[in-house]
Amino acid sequence: MSFDPSTLKFNAQGLIPAIAQDHISGEVLMFAWMNTEAIARTLATRQVTYWSRSRQAFWAKGKTSGHVQKLVELRIDCDRDCLLLRVDQAGPACHTLRRSCFYTVVRDGDEVITADPMLS
Amino acid sequence: MSFDPSTLKFNAQGLIPAIAQDHISGEVLMFAWMNTEAIARTLATRQVTYWSRSRQAFWAKGKTSGHVQKLVELRIDCDRDCLLLRVDQAGPACHTLRRSCFYTVVRDGDEVITADPMLS
Repeated sequence: MSFDPSTLKFNAQGLIPAIAQDHISGEVLMFAWMNTEAIARTLATRQVTYWSRSRQAFWAKGKTSGHVQKLVELRIDCDRDCLLLRVDQAGPACHTLRRSCFYTVVRDGDEVITADPMLS
Repeated sequence: MSFDPSTLKFNAQGLIPAIAQDHISGEVLMFAWMNTEAIARTLATRQVTYWSRSRQAFWAKGKTSGHVQKLVELRIDCDRDCLLLRVDQAGPACHTLRRSCFYTVVRDGDEVITADPMLS
């Protein structure tokens, strides 16, 4: 079946959640949102573009920072309401300059920060 | 810092996205939503409970199917608006009886199903 982004299930704002995962290590790097045009741009350029809800604008990941995400594989979940992007991430995915945004672990009822910012 | 679920950022429906990942293989298994009480139940029982948006009810994963998710580690992202659950998944995570919900790959413009339902 030919893939048509408009057949996905978007929320009331026209957005679908997207999980970015390192295609080699399997590490979950970040979570963000896409709309149909962001998906189309991502597939056309093979570099990931999200939709920034805070800025209400397209967010070509790494365009200013250089921390681009090359799309290796796009996956769709069973309900067609979530995307999994397997990516080749240049440097940190997180705006805190950590590799992954999920660097805080809940351990014995406390929050523990488990990663340092990457040195450039 | 002590972890208090009420300090997370929930959407207008009081929900936060949650990604479930196999704690050994790193495979992303599924994506669902939680509220503060679902998080509290998950931490108290060490078995994952979501909030079902379609049923508007708590969803103790695997309670009827037996496909429970034991919580190994709870992680929080930098913006405190997404959770990563590293889990020990019994059998399939997906309601289609596939290990992961993300079994459909977009390849050369086509949707390709890459996994079969697990045999019981």
